[in-house]
Amino acid sequence: MEENTIFIGNKPVMNYVLAVVTQFNQYNTVTLRARGKAISRAVDTAEIVRNSFVQEAYVEDIQISTEEVENFNEEKTNVSIIEIKLGK
Amino acid sequence: MEENTIFIGNKPVMNYVLAVVTQFNQYNTVTLRARGKAISRAVDTAEIVRNSFVQEAYVEDIQISTEEVENFNEEKTNVSIIEIKLGK
Repeated sequence: MEENTIFIGNKPVMNYVLAVVTQFNQYNTVTLRARGKAISRAVDTAEIVRNSFVQEAYVEDIQISTEEVENFNEEKTNVSIIEIKLGK
Repeated sequence: MEENTIFIGNKPVMNYVLAVVTQFNQYNTVTLRARGKAISRAVDTAEIVRNSFVQEAYVEDIQISTEEVENFNEEKTNVSIIEIKLGK
């Protein structure tokens, strides 16, 4: 995993927007990674950054995949992943 | 909007998986479109189709965008959109 990857979780979306804008001061690409229900928040983050905060940002690549995770009963279950790579 | 587009909403994910598999009998590409919280369900649908039901399916393209919608107070708010184009 590269340094300029931001993991999207359950915090308010503006926390992640701020993190992306901050990373863009240092890097020309920033990757957002989210799984499960946080996937829609990753898309929101990318769209808000692009439309309101970093005018020159664009979507360079979007990948989806699946990971196996263990739940609290130690049962294995699949969870979807999204990785949105933003460039500027 | 093309005929072979499936709108992902709040139904159980397997309903949409079945819809995609059915469309693949008729078309070589199927597009999944979702907005807001349903975005993660669209990714789940694509991943389940690809991993378990249509082995030759692959992600041809993923686009994200923003739409303005009116809520119940007639206030305008932005919602994120994802379109996942699957080919086989």
